[in-house]
Amino acid sequence: MAEERAGIFPHPPADTEPHGITMPEICREAGDEAEFIHPADLADHLENLSLEKQVCALRHMPTEDAAEALAELEGSVAVDVLENLDADVAAQIIAEMSPDDAADVLDELDEEHRDVLLDKLDKEDSEELRHLLNFDPDSAAGVMNTELVLLERSFTADEAIAHIRREMAEDKESPYYAYVVDEQDVLVGVLSLRDIMLARPGIRVGEAVAGQSVVSVTYDTDKREVASLLSHYNFLAMPVVDLEGHIMGVVTYDDILDIVHEEASADMLGMVGADPEESVDTPWLESVRKRLPWLMVNLLNSALSASVVYMFEGTIAQMAVLAVLMPMVANQAGNTGQQALAVMIRQLATDRFDQKKAWMAVLREGKIGLATGCIMALAACAGAWGFTGNVTVGGVMGGALLCDMLLGALAGGSIPLIFRALGRDPAQASSIFLTTITDGAGFFLFLGLASLFLF
Amino acid sequence: MAEERAGIFPHPPADTEPHGITMPEICREAGDEAEFIHPADLADHLENLSLEKQVCALRHMPTEDAAEALAELEGSVAVDVLENLDADVAAQIIAEMSPDDAADVLDELDEEHRDVLLDKLDKEDSEELRHLLNFDPDSAAGVMNTELVLLERSFTADEAIAHIRREMAEDKESPYYAYVVDEQDVLVGVLSLRDIMLARPGIRVGEAVAGQSVVSVTYDTDKREVASLLSHYNFLAMPVVDLEGHIMGVVTYDDILDIVHEEASADMLGMVGADPEESVDTPWLESVRKRLPWLMVNLLNSALSASVVYMFEGTIAQMAVLAVLMPMVANQAGNTGQQALAVMIRQLATDRFDQKKAWMAVLREGKIGLATGCIMALAACAGAWGFTGNVTVGGVMGGALLCDMLLGALAGGSIPLIFRALGRDPAQASSIFLTTITDGAGFFLFLGLASLFLF
Repeated sequence: MAEERAGIFPHPPADTEPHGITMPEICREAGDEAEFIHPADLADHLENLSLEKQVCALRHMPTEDAAEALAELEGSVAVDVLENLDADVAAQIIAEMSPDDAADVLDELDEEHRDVLLDKLDKEDSEELRHLLNFDPDSAAGVMNTELVLLERSFTADEAIAHIRREMAEDKESPYYAYVVDEQDVLVGVLSLRDIMLARPGIRVGEAVAGQSVVSVTYDTDKREVASLLSHYNFLAMPVVDLEGHIMGVVTYDDILDIVHEEASADMLGMVGADPEESVDTPWLESVRKRLPWLMVNLLNSALSASVVYMFEGTIAQMAVLAVLMPMVANQAGNTGQQALAVMIRQLATDRFDQKKAWMAVLREGKIGLATGCIMALAACAGAWGFTGNVTVGGVMGGALLCDMLLGALAGGSIPLIFRALGRDPAQASSIFLTTITDGAGFFLFLGLASLFLF
Repeated sequence: MAEERAGIFPHPPADTEPHGITMPEICREAGDEAEFIHPADLADHLENLSLEKQVCALRHMPTEDAAEALAELEGSVAVDVLENLDADVAAQIIAEMSPDDAADVLDELDEEHRDVLLDKLDKEDSEELRHLLNFDPDSAAGVMNTELVLLERSFTADEAIAHIRREMAEDKESPYYAYVVDEQDVLVGVLSLRDIMLARPGIRVGEAVAGQSVVSVTYDTDKREVASLLSHYNFLAMPVVDLEGHIMGVVTYDDILDIVHEEASADMLGMVGADPEESVDTPWLESVRKRLPWLMVNLLNSALSASVVYMFEGTIAQMAVLAVLMPMVANQAGNTGQQALAVMIRQLATDRFDQKKAWMAVLREGKIGLATGCIMALAACAGAWGFTGNVTVGGVMGGALLCDMLLGALAGGSIPLIFRALGRDPAQASSIFLTTITDGAGFFLFLGLASLFLF
C-alpha cells in the first residue's frame, strides 16, 4: 500500500488527490493520448471500452492504479470486470482497495465469485472484509471505513504527531481527524490534524479532549441519517461506534456525497413509482419489471377515479361538453398537489423537522392552495363560461377547481407525512396516490355540481 | 481570529470541528441546559426562538461563536437578526465570519443595510467582501473561499510545513490542500497536507508537483458544474482561477454538499413548476406569486388537450362511457412519462453524459414504454371489454394506451434533453409539458380510434 512513486512523494490516498495515473499502452484505443489521468476519469474512460479492453487495461496497469479505477467504476461494470479477470489478479486489486470500497464491490458479486476472491486474500484482509460484508449496506457500518487513526489518551501531542505520520505512511485513508480512545477503545474525543499540529508539544491528548461531547453514530444508524448529520455539522467524517461506544470506523464526506446524490434520485424516482436506484444504466428489462407493479397500481387507481365518472355517465350523455372540461379540473389540482408534494419531500430529505413544524407546513400549503385556487378558479370560470356560453357551467367549473386545488394542496402536503408516520418511504409512489385523490375528487366535484345545478 | 481557548488548543475553524460553544445564560429559554453545543445545533435552537431572543443571544455570546452560529442560520433568519442588531456588533460578527459565509449573508441584506455594515469593517475586510459580492452567487467565485494556503515553488518541504503552521495559526479555514504557485500566482500544483508531512525535508515543492495536471475551475464556472466535478473526483476542495490561471480561491466540500442538496430540490421542485429555491420556510404569499405563472401555463396546456376532447364531443355524446375510460389512458401514459422524466433529470444532475449516451437513454425509455405499454394495454383492454361488454371498446382502449405510453416514455426521456439543448433548465416545468403531450395524445388516440371503429 505504501509504495513510493518516483521516489519523491509517496503515493497519495485514492480518494482525494488531484494526481494522475496512466493507462497501459497496449489496452488503449487508437488515438488515445498517453497522459496521466485521474482515476475517476480513467474509470469513465474504461466504461466506454469493451469488456475485453477493460480487463486488459486493469490487468496491465499497476495494482494500486487498478484498485483506484475499480473503486470508481459503476457497480455493474466492476462486477463484469472482476468476473473476467484472473482470480489472482482480481484478489490483488481487491487487497489494494480501501476496505469500504472493496466491500461495496464484493457485495455486488455473486456468492461463489466472492468466496473465491476472499479465499485468495491474506487472512487479515479477508476477515476484515467478511466482517464488513455482514453489515446492512444501508447502515453506517455498511458504508464506514475501518482504517482510522486512533490515539491513546496518554499520548502527548508530539507522540500523537509521530503516530499519525507512521499511520499516514501506511496509507490509512483520509486522516482528517484522529480519534482519542480510552483503554477499552471507547471513543472519548476527536482532534483534527490542525488541533494536533498546533498543540503545545507536552500536552496529553486526554487533557486536550476533556469535556468534549463527541458526535458519533451507532453502527446500525441508517446511512441517510448519517448523511443528514454530517451535512448538518459540516464534518469531514463521522465516527461509527458500537452500542458500548467502542469505535468501529468512520464514514467520510465522499461517501456522504454519494449518499446525498442517491437519496435525491431515490426521492424523485420513488415519487413517480420508479425504482429508487434506477438509472439510465439499469438494464431495460429490469426497469420494466420494477416499474410494472406501480403502473398496475396506477391503472387500478385511475380505474377508481374513472368509476366516479361512471356514476355520472348519464350527466355526460346529456351534456358532452362536460367531458371536455372535466380533465382540466383534475389536471390543475394534480399540478397544485405535486408542487406541495415536491416541497414536502425535499423538506423531509434535508431537515429532520418535528411534528408541529410539519403540520404548519401542511397548513401553509393549504393557504397557497386556497389562494392559487381562487385565482385559477376565476380564470377557469371565465374561460368555461366564454367557451360554453353557459354561466352555470362556468360556476361549476370554478367551484370544482377551487375545491379540488385546495384538496390537492392539502393532500400533497400531508401524503409524505402520513407515509412517514406509517414507517414508509415518504416519497414512494406518492405522486400516484396524489393523482388518484385529485382525479377522483375533481371528477366527483365537477360532475356532481354539474348534475346538481345544470339539470 | 486566532484567539486561544482555555489556553490548551486554539479555537478550531468554524466548519469542521466537533467542539461545542455555549449559549449565554440570560438569553436562554427556561429549562435549557447550560452545555456546550455545536454551532449548527445552536443555529437550529436559535431558529426556534423569538427575534428578540435571537438578537440577545448573538449579542451576548463571544463574537467568534456568534459568527459561527450566524453562518449556520437560514438566510431569512440571519437577515432579520442582522437588521436588528446594533450595526457595530453586527459588523464585528461579520468580520469574524469566513469571507464566503459573510458574503452569502450580506448578499441577502438590502443594499442600504449592507453598505452600513461594510463601512464599519476595516478597509481590507470590506474591500474583500465587496469584491466577493460582485460575483454571480451561482458561480464558482460566488461560493469560493478566499482564505487559502499558497506555497511558492522554491519552498522546501520543511519551509512549506512551517508556512502552513503559521497560516493555520491565523485560522485560514480548512487547509485540506496547499496550492503551489509560480511568481505570478499562477496555479501550478496541489499538495495535500499528507503529501507535505511525508515529504523528504529538502525537496522543493516545485519539484514535487512537476508534471501534475491540476484540476481547477475558472471563476465563472456554474456552481453546479463545480459540485459535479468535485463529486466526480472526490476532492475536498476545488481551486478557482481567473482566465490567466491565477488562483483566486477555493470551493470546499461543505459548500458542495449544500449545492448538491439545493440542486436536488431545484430539480424536483422545478419539474412540477414550483420555484427551485422554495422550501417550507418560504413566505406563503411569495410561493403563491411564484407558482401562479406555472399553474396558468398548466391551465392553458390542459385547455389545449381539452380542445382535443372537444373535437370529439359528438362521439362522446353518442357513447358517454368513453368519457369514463378516456382519463385512464392519459393518466397511465402520464405516469409512464414521469418515470422516464425522473430518470433522465437525475441522470443529467449527476452525470455530464454526452449526446450519444443521452439518445441511447431515450431509446431505452422507448423500449421500456413499449414493453410496459403492451402489458398494461392487455390488462386495460380486458378490463374495458369486461366493463362495457364491447370488444371493440377494449381494442380501442388497448391500442390507445399502448401508443400513448410509448409516446409518454419517449417524451419523458427527451424533454429534459431538448430543454438542455435550448439552454433551459432540463427540469423546469417539464412535468407540465409532458402531461400536455400525454393528455392530448391520449384523448386524441382514444377518441379518434373510437370514432373510427365504433360508429
